[in-house]
Order: sequence, then C-alpha cells, then structure tokens
Amino acid sequence: MKNRIVLIVLFCLLISPSFAKDGYKLWLDYQSIENPNLAEEAEKLFEGIYFFGKNSTYEVIQKELELASKGFLNQNPEFKKLNQNARLWIGTRSELSQYLGLDHQAKIKALGEEGYWRGPLNQEGESLYAIIGNTPKGVLYGVFDFLRSIQTGTFDSNSEKSDSPKIKLRMLNHWDNLDRTVERGYAGFSIWDWHRLPGYIDPRYIDYARANASLGINAVSLTNVNANAWVLREDFIEKVKVLADLFRPYGIQVFLTARFSAPMEMGNLETADPLDTEVKKFWKERVDLIYKEIPDFGGFLVKANSEGQPGPHEYGRNHAEGANMLAEALAPHGGIVIWRAFVYSHEIDEDRHKQANLEFEPLDGKFMDNVIIQVKNGAIDFQPREPFHPLFGAVEETNLGMEFQITQEYLGQATQLVYLSPMWEEILQSKTYRPSPNSTVAEIIDGSATDKELTLMAGVSNIGTDRNWTGHLFGQANWYAFGKLAWDPYQNSAEIAEEWINLTFGQNPETQRKISTIMLQSHEAAVNYMTPLGLHHLMGRSHHYGPGPWVEGGRADWTSVYYHRADSEGIGFDRTESGSNALGQYASEIAYNWSDPNQIPEKFLLWFHHLPWDFKLRSGRTLWDEIGLHYDLGVKTAREMKQQWDSLHGLVDEEQFSHTSQLLAIQVQEAEWWRNACLLYFQTFSNRPFPDDIEKPTGDLEYYKSLRFPFAPGIKPNW
Amino acid sequence: MKNRIVLIVLFCLLISPSFAKDGYKLWLDYQSIENPNLAEEAEKLFEGIYFFGKNSTYEVIQKELELASKGFLNQNPEFKKLNQNARLWIGTRSELSQYLGLDHQAKIKALGEEGYWRGPLNQEGESLYAIIGNTPKGVLYGVFDFLRSIQTGTFDSNSEKSDSPKIKLRMLNHWDNLDRTVERGYAGFSIWDWHRLPGYIDPRYIDYARANASLGINAVSLTNVNANAWVLREDFIEKVKVLADLFRPYGIQVFLTARFSAPMEMGNLETADPLDTEVKKFWKERVDLIYKEIPDFGGFLVKANSEGQPGPHEYGRNHAEGANMLAEALAPHGGIVIWRAFVYSHEIDEDRHKQANLEFEPLDGKFMDNVIIQVKNGAIDFQPREPFHPLFGAVEETNLGMEFQITQEYLGQATQLVYLSPMWEEILQSKTYRPSPNSTVAEIIDGSATDKELTLMAGVSNIGTDRNWTGHLFGQANWYAFGKLAWDPYQNSAEIAEEWINLTFGQNPETQRKISTIMLQSHEAAVNYMTPLGLHHLMGRSHHYGPGPWVEGGRADWTSVYYHRADSEGIGFDRTESGSNALGQYASEIAYNWSDPNQIPEKFLLWFHHLPWDFKLRSGRTLWDEIGLHYDLGVKTAREMKQQWDSLHGLVDEEQFSHTSQLLAIQVQEAEWWRNACLLYFQTFSNRPFPDDIEKPTGDLEYYKSLRFPFAPGIKPNW
Repeated sequence: MKNRIVLIVLFCLLISPSFAKDGYKLWLDYQSIENPNLAEEAEKLFEGIYFFGKNSTYEVIQKELELASKGFLNQNPEFKKLNQNARLWIGTRSELSQYLGLDHQAKIKALGEEGYWRGPLNQEGESLYAIIGNTPKGVLYGVFDFLRSIQTGTFDSNSEKSDSPKIKLRMLNHWDNLDRTVERGYAGFSIWDWHRLPGYIDPRYIDYARANASLGINAVSLTNVNANAWVLREDFIEKVKVLADLFRPYGIQVFLTARFSAPMEMGNLETADPLDTEVKKFWKERVDLIYKEIPDFGGFLVKANSEGQPGPHEYGRNHAEGANMLAEALAPHGGIVIWRAFVYSHEIDEDRHKQANLEFEPLDGKFMDNVIIQVKNGAIDFQPREPFHPLFGAVEETNLGMEFQITQEYLGQATQLVYLSPMWEEILQSKTYRPSPNSTVAEIIDGSATDKELTLMAGVSNIGTDRNWTGHLFGQANWYAFGKLAWDPYQNSAEIAEEWINLTFGQNPETQRKISTIMLQSHEAAVNYMTPLGLHHLMGRSHHYGPGPWVEGGRADWTSVYYHRADSEGIGFDRTESGSNALGQYASEIAYNWSDPNQIPEKFLLWFHHLPWDFKLRSGRTLWDEIGLHYDLGVKTAREMKQQWDSLHGLVDEEQFSHTSQLLAIQVQEAEWWRNACLLYFQTFSNRPFPDDIEKPTGDLEYYKSLRFPFAPGIKPNW
Repeated sequence: MKNRIVLIVLFCLLISPSFAKDGYKLWLDYQSIENPNLAEEAEKLFEGIYFFGKNSTYEVIQKELELASKGFLNQNPEFKKLNQNARLWIGTRSELSQYLGLDHQAKIKALGEEGYWRGPLNQEGESLYAIIGNTPKGVLYGVFDFLRSIQTGTFDSNSEKSDSPKIKLRMLNHWDNLDRTVERGYAGFSIWDWHRLPGYIDPRYIDYARANASLGINAVSLTNVNANAWVLREDFIEKVKVLADLFRPYGIQVFLTARFSAPMEMGNLETADPLDTEVKKFWKERVDLIYKEIPDFGGFLVKANSEGQPGPHEYGRNHAEGANMLAEALAPHGGIVIWRAFVYSHEIDEDRHKQANLEFEPLDGKFMDNVIIQVKNGAIDFQPREPFHPLFGAVEETNLGMEFQITQEYLGQATQLVYLSPMWEEILQSKTYRPSPNSTVAEIIDGSATDKELTLMAGVSNIGTDRNWTGHLFGQANWYAFGKLAWDPYQNSAEIAEEWINLTFGQNPETQRKISTIMLQSHEAAVNYMTPLGLHHLMGRSHHYGPGPWVEGGRADWTSVYYHRADSEGIGFDRTESGSNALGQYASEIAYNWSDPNQIPEKFLLWFHHLPWDFKLRSGRTLWDEIGLHYDLGVKTAREMKQQWDSLHGLVDEEQFSHTSQLLAIQVQEAEWWRNACLLYFQTFSNRPFPDDIEKPTGDLEYYKSLRFPFAPGIKPNW
C-alpha cells in the first residue's frame, strides 16, 4: 500500500510535462545567466571573440563557446577580427607574445604545457579579457575554466587566474568489454558501439570528450583490464582510430589494454614469453601498426598474472621483464606501459594484502622509464574504506600511479548516493613517512616526493549508456571530483562538492547547503552500514551487491569469512606481527603505532587486529556494542539524507528530484538490509544482545542468506 | 583518406551547437504550429478543455494535452468547468449522453470498446469540439489521433472522424532477457531495468507507454520467448506489477513468457507434464499469485518444443494439451495463452518449412477458446521476403494471430534503413483462397474470414536503450507502421510512411517526397542485395549479420546450403511434389499455379523450385544472369537512397541528417558486401561469367568467408 502511494506520487512527477533535466548535459549545462551584471559582462565578451590561430582544438573551443553563448545568453557568439572590437582574446603565449610583457610571458611559460592564464589585458586603453596557454590544450583548459566561472557566477573580468595540473596523466580506465557489457558497470552498457564503428559516430563520443576535457582528463583506456586480444586486430584498430581522432582536439590520448597472451591468440606463436624474440617482434609490429593509424597513441594498460590473467610468470619472468618488453616496443613512439600492481597469484597466500609489495619492492629500479606501476588506493580491492596501499612509499626508483575506482563496485553501485571524494582525499592526505618523514600519498603521486616526471592518476570509469551517464545522478559528482583531484590532488572535497552542486543544481544557497550536507556525510554513512571499524570484504559473492558476510567456500581470499574471521572469541584480521604482519610493509612509524589496538585509528581497527567482542574502545563501549552502533548510525544517516533531499522538493528540477528521491529510498532499504544482515550474522558468533540504544535489526538471517541476484548488473551474464 | 574527410565533415556536424533532434521524442514531438489559422484554432481548444469524468486514463490524457499545448503553442492548456466556456469536450459516450442524439450515440456505440468519435458538436449555439469513446481507452485513442491531426496540419474542427481497431490484441513482443541483453536486439539493451525495479521507475517507461498508446498498441510481452522461469518468482512479479501499474492508464496489458519447465525449475517438481496434477496445481497457484498483484494481467506467451525450448512433447503430449493446461489456469482470470507456431523438432525434418502445419493442422478445434496460435508471417524465419505461412487458411477452428518481426534480424539490423511495411502489406494482402476463394491473410488475422473474436497481431520489438529507441532512426517507422497495421491491417504502406515522415521530419513537400521514395524502395532493395528471386537464409551464422551463403556444418537446417542447394546444375529448394511438397500445404489454387516455374511469381521462384542456371526467366535472361542483375540492382538502389538522403542536407535537422547519412554509407558498403560475397560464392557453382550490364563483384571470396563478428549485437555474448 505504501508502495502504491509512492508509485502514484512519482508517477505524477514523472509524467509532468516540464522540460526536465535528464542529466545528459552533466556539469556543462550552460543555463541562462540570471545576474544582469554578469550577463552584460558575458555578452560583451561573447560578442567579440578573437582566436590568434587555427587548429582543431580551437575549432572545438569555438563550438564550445557557441554552445555556451546560446545557453548563457540565448544568442550566437560573434567571432571577430582583431581590429573589430574583439574583447575576448584566445591563443597561446607565443601567438600573443607581442601583446605580453616579458614578466607575463615568463609567468605563463612556467605553467607548463597544460597550464593556462586568464585575466584582463589592457591594450591601447581598451580593456580586454584573454585566455592564454602555452599550447592549444592549455587554452582549452582555460576556456573551460572561464566558462565554469560564468556558470557558477564567480567570473570577474578584473581578476586573473592561472592554473596547471600537478599530475601528468589524468586518466579514465573503462572496464568495457567488446560486446558492450561493462565489468562493474552500473550505468547501462558501454558507450563504445564497436559494431557500428568506424562508420557510425555516436554524438555521445563528442560529449564524452567535452566532459573529460572540461575537467582536464587527458587520457582514456577504452577496454577492460581483463583484456581481449581481439581489440588489437586491424579492423578494431581502425575503430579505435576514429575515437582517437575525435578525442585528439580535446587533448585526450587513447590507451588500450593489452592481453599478455595476444602473441599466442592472434599471432599464432606458441609462447608469450617476454624474452622470446618472436614475441618481441609480434608486439613491435603490432605497436607499429597502431601508431601508423594513431600517431599519438598513449600505450598499453596491463593486468598481468592477476585473477587468472596471463602474464610473464607463466614463463618464469617477473613483472619488470614483462612490462619492459612492451615498453621497448612503445618507447620509439613515445608510448608508455601502465602496469597494474593489483596482482595476486593462483595459490592462496597467507594474506592477499601483502602480495603487491612482495612482488614489486624487489623490482624497484628495474622498470624502464616509460613504465608506470598503477597501484590501487588500498591493498585489498576498493573496499568502502581502506588504509593507503603500502606500496606508496615503499619504492623510490619506480614510477607509481594511483588507481581509484569511480564506479561504485563496493559502495552502493548505482542505487546509492555515495560521494567518493572524501575517501580519496583521506588516501591522498595519508602520511606515508617515506621517502621523507612528512611525505604523503599525494606527494608520491604527483612525483614531488620522489622526483618523478611520469605521474598518473587513473579512475575506473562509472560511465555507461544510461542517459545521465552514471546511472545515479550523483555518480556524476564522483566523475567530476576524480577529474578535479587528478588535476590537483591537494584539493578539498567540500569545495569540489560545492562547485559541482552549483553547476548541477544552481545557486540557491539552501539547496546548495542541503545537498552538500548529504554528499559530505554519504561516504561515512556507507562505511558505517557496510563495513565499519575496519571490517572489509563483506559483500555478496560475484556481483558484490548487498551484504554477504556469510560468504564462504571456493577460493578463500574471495570469501568474506577469510577477511572478518569472526568466531566466538572475536572478530578482525590480525595483520600485526602476531598475524600476517602486513602492517610491517608500512613505514615503521605506522607499523609501530597501528600495532597497538589502542593507538590505531579506530576506523582501521579490525583491518589490522583480531579482537575480543568485549574489547573496550575509546568510547568506553565494547567492540560488539560499537559495531552495532556504527551499523545503526549508518542507517540513520541514510534516512537523514533522504529526509534532507525530500525537503528540496520544488527547489530542484522535478526529474532530478524524483530520480534521486527514488534512489535514496532504495538506499535506505539497502542500508537497513546491510545492517540487519551483518548484525544478525555476527551475533551468531558474539552471542551478545544488541546495545540498548540502537534500532534492533529485524528480519530473518536465513532469508537474507537465501537472496540471489543472478541478473545484477556489472557481472558477466549468468546464461 | 576518404574516410578521414567524411569523418571531419561529420565531426563538424556532430558538434554543431544546435538543439538537435536526438530521436527520443519519436512521433510525439509536438513542434510549434506554423500555420497561423491552425494555431488559432488549436489555441481556442487548448484554452478550454473539459473532462466529463475522472480516472487514471483521463489523467494521462491531461498530461499529454499539457505536453502538446506547450509544444504546439508554448503555453499551458486550461482545464475549465463545463460552464466556463469549455470548447474541447472529452469523455465517454455515457458521460456525454445528455448532449448526444440517439443516432449519434448508436453510431459511437457501434465503434466498440476501443473506438472513438471526434468532431464538432453544437450546443446552444456554441460550436464545440468533442472527443468521445465508449471507454476512457477509446477516448485516449481519440485524443492521440486528434493531436496527430494537429501535428500533421490536417485538423479541421468542422469535420468528424471515427475509427476503431480491427484486431483485438495489438502487441509488442520483447525478446528481452532478464540481464538486459536483447536477443536480436540492435538498439542497445533492454529498457527494462529489472535490477532497479520495483523501487526505481525509469521515466522512459512512461514515454514507451505513450508511444504505444498513440498507435493503439494495447499489449506487451516483456520477456524473451526463450524464457527464463526466474521472472515468475515473487520478487520479479513485484517488479512486473510496477510496469503493469504504469501501463494500465495507457490501455496496455502486460504479458509474460512462460517457460514450460518452470514447475521443475522453480516448483521442485520432477515433471512438467501438462496432464500431471501437481503441474497443473503449480501453474494455477503461480497464475493466482500473478493476478493478485496484476488483476488485468494478459496471460502467457509460450515458445514450446522449438529450438531446444522445453514443451509438452517431452511427455508425449501435444501442443493443444500443453496450451490448454495453461489456458485453464488463466481462464478464471480472463487471461489467455499465446502459443507460438514456430516449432521444429530436434530431429532435422525433410523440410523445416512444413513443420508447423504438420503439427497444428491435426489439432484444429482442440485448443481452448482462450488460446491463440501466433504464426510467423512465413514458414521459415522472418527472411527478407517469404511467402505467407501456409497455416493461414489451413485451420478454421483455431484462433490464429500474426507474428511480424519489427527488429531487423535478417533485414540489416540497425545499420540499414529498411521500411518493413511493404513487406507486411504484401503478406496481409496475400490471397489464401481458404476458407473462401477470396480470403486474404488480413481477413484471417482480423477474424472476419473465420468468425473469430480473439484476434492478434504481434510484432517482435526493435526497441532498446539507444536514445532514439530503435538504433536506426528509421527503425521508428517500422514500430509506427506495425502499430498502424495492427490497428487496421488493410492500411497502405505509402500512406503510413507519409504520415510518419510528416510527424518526424515536418511538412516540407520536397523532404517528404524524397524520404518517401527512399523508404518505399528500401525493402525491395534489401531483398535484391540479400536474397533475390526467392533465395533465403543466406546470412552469417548465429549473429545473422552480413552474408554467409557458404555456411554449412552443424545442424543442417541452420545452414545456408540447406536452403539454397546450389550445385553445378542449378540453385533453389524444390518444394513442389517432386521435392518436399511444402507447396502442397497451401490451397490447391496456389499449389497448382506455383508448381509451375513459369507461373509462380518470380519473387518466390527459388523458394519453391530448384532450377538450372540457364533456366529462362520472363525477361528472357537466364536465371544466373537474373540473379546477378538483382544483386546489382539492390546495390544501385542503396546508393540512390544515399544520394537522395544527402540531397536533404539543410532540409532536415542536422543530427537526424548526420545520423542517417552515416548509416546509409554503411548500408551501401553492406549491400556491396552482400552482392560481392553471394555472387562470387554462387559463381563457384554456376561457373558462368557475370552478365555484362552489371558492376562486377569485387573482392576475394576467401576474405569474405574469413570475416568474424564475435561481438555483433543481438546474440548471447561470446565469453
């Protein structure tokens, strides 16, 4: 009955004939400018635009300015000659050199290849506004920033701004299969319509490039890391070339995933041994063929010897030998190898946590300069909260890149609003104590701590064919925040949220405040109702949808019981010296402090310690009670988020409202489901009552255990 | 190089900042009215709308009028009280009875449950306009027709119109799997987001219902005929219920596909024998459960004992026993069983063509009244051209429905523009000579020839998640035409095309003429470049993409060689008395005439005859030459279609233009591919030169044979 009423209400909203926002335009929805002063200022500029050169990037800038002008001012922009009262100047430092003082030129030059300066220029008494980069790409970034300042109402023609990215490769990793399914994709299917390429260009490809460029994302890997060699065939390279051609003006380089066994699967060789001459020849020829079609091809992203993927270990070679073989083929063209550190062998190790360091620390200094190791933020697998990966700080002679997961595999998929930036910020701001006592993960990633030039932040894409790109409207915020942090890993999540909200929902302060509150509490809420206090890997098997703390059987380190180790005595994974000593892979400062269950931050408690149910936490409560409180708090926060949102009815667009309201209702149900299932399950070990001050878990543990989701998204279909 | 130029041109089009038409609005794009007289008239009506009652269908009509008014006039409509100068009256005959004369009432009553009358009414000197049905659903259809008349500029407030459907069930069959893949789907993936149902309602569900209702489509089967019993579980019924609730106000009934072995798979029974008491009980309980949630549930669509699907034959029961068992469970609720005649056994028969008649003719009169047999238009499988199915006319005591395939499995999938209505019209207008000498397929389908009440036209949906719904913009025309022909199977394809073009591309006569020319020649072109002169089943294996006349091995009647039977002597399938005598299943008039290769319509020649390469056709040319000419003509027509379209640049919306232009370029390539591959292959048997007056096939037969498309859409992914 309740469902029916909700349905009727939503139904009325859904069919309301407004020109609703379906989310397709992302943060590039150039709405009419409401502030009359700003409109006047913008109009002056859009009526007199001058480009100091011609190239394909300026062409896409011109198109963007047309879109923006139509949206902001409902009029076409005017592209003038220089002497025709052009007020908005667009060009590179060298193109504008005669109008710039030497100091100004030096200042811009220092911003590097991708930086930009924008601000007022006085020429012969005329006040102009200029957007200047060292390259057209820098100009492009400057223009997007200029447009964003208008969108957010912060543009000031009298003040200047300059910026440049701190990380070289700011990259999306698509886990898209060639049949358009997406591994861990929750927003429909792959936007790459391989079947209709190269002949048919989906307009979406362009909007994808625009969105990425607007954030400074400059690289994309198109295909799943669980790779299919088929993409390296000539007919597919021809398809990839079309995408590369489309993305090039937007400053975006294309990468592919390389299946290590491709020489056998498509080259008819009997080995893929990286030291074999024929294998090297195969890769060299294949790489040459790619560069013939795509001269600025980025290189290969490789997942080798991990979860069944082929790799150099089959031939007794190590990761460096595997990576360097590919790197040699790519080096003459300027290409690079991105080699994933997410490795663990077929045999179950004592602690999967330790694998990457065990394999990569001994190889420090062995990788070629055009190889970078892409390390997940934590040592397990994108859990709701993980401590930073111990490889950060453990090697100094190896290029290390960050891999974040934007798609919410373990964080509510596309039915939950979880703003991931605070989680990423927590990782980036973590002190590694290595190489220097004050080093942070961010300083390793941006190369400043280890003096590296090849730097990388990759995000596993949450993009699919859903009209709003990300399934959940708020998934857009995670794409956005990823781009922002890849540009500058020192940015603040609250500020990023504020900007995204402004671009997505407009400038009403109450709306902004409420949405910001929802977003900023969402990650902690999810951690609480899923895996509080350092618990991890408790999700359903295979699809990872919903709780599954009871998952056991099959490969041990793919089960939940392997990680939580609950028994009648207590719960948690002992990773101290008395256990696996994964903690010993961190800097000694960390290893020392975190070895003490009374010193370690409680958010990581059960990640590193197996403790009795009656262990006392800093609150004075027992571990069991504190677990219950956290789960319950998570549910309550989810409900508050829903209430906050629902109070925005009428203040945000109807379609945005209804979309999010429905999904928040699902989120509350899922939060309750997680809490009930986990607490009822753990109670079978703790044999203790729930603390008085929480809402008691309801439902039947056997029922929760019986639930099956064979058609959950993001997994290979269960035929 | 040529590719590159095309790419650049298209690129510029694609990023042009117009508010382009992406096809989402289908034929319901209520554009601003340009004719000032019409605008004035429409304004008068939209400013004073009165509903004579309240119900959920009137609510959706109201929303539709709001959308239309905003689009047509850029203003909200006004819903008045009766005495407030209401000029547009909306209601049922009984609601309006006091304002209608007895003759008028009788006239409307005769239109039946779904018919409508619309026209001027004079009341106390006031001229009003009324839309009246016998039920709210009839009113809904009248309103959509009224709106369409405004869109096409044909509305006249002084003239009246009445209409009613000739077929009872006008139905879409979705071949959608629960994991969102779509068997033979070429427009992305399933629009049913089962994972997020019941909690999340995609706004698309409403637009889907609107589009169908606007055509009079009143039934949908949501799931693949290759069925999964999982959809009958309670949690899925809850999801189905949400869709049924959404569709109900639009007059659309929901059906599901029933997997015959469900009692074993989900009921833990050891048999699915339709005569088993426990099996009957299982189905009765399952049906009762469904009706508890969905009181107007339509019933089951069943594919049994065909292509590996389970069915009654496993238990020595016939199709009637299988269907009647389900029909008994459904009958108390008013539900029906739609039982497919597309059956052929595991064992290879002498001629697959004959199977349905062999199985169903002996069962005539044995099916319950609430069973209808759904027969594909032809006896093989939706080939580019087939003669009508010999079951039409062969049984009189059995309800027979038509199954057309809207999705273009064998007709260019979503890369080709093929307007299917002429093909369907050809089938519907075919003379069956049974039961009476002048009977046609249409008369059997609408029940008039055999005095049946339960009538059905089903179309296998071409709808998916692609923004434009159908992958190819012109796929919309096939959805549209299907709806029109299901409402009235005597309609004319050219007129349907004209109406669709008007709604989709506007009222420029040159545009309309050119697009109409393209559409009306497109089916014959495809037949020519794919399977001319009665050839059939020559496509690539499994995915059915592109030519594969060489396909052999494996199950014989899934190969091409089984059907074309080319050898050094000749080509074609002898289905006369000297062969399989499938022809003997038709009325004697047909069997007699078509047995003679000089009498049979040449379009069916090789369907029924195996003839020498030098056989002389009516043109005086040899069969070999004529085959060459047809293939070549197909290619030339495809090129003309492309040229015609490209001459519309600037006359149609840029996005529509670019989309179709790109796809027509692919179509030309695919037409050449078909011609080259088929002619080069058949030449290996005919050993004859190509006729002088055709463009010679180019390319290498071995190359064509080597092509592989493991990621083609519409098939189960090749993991």
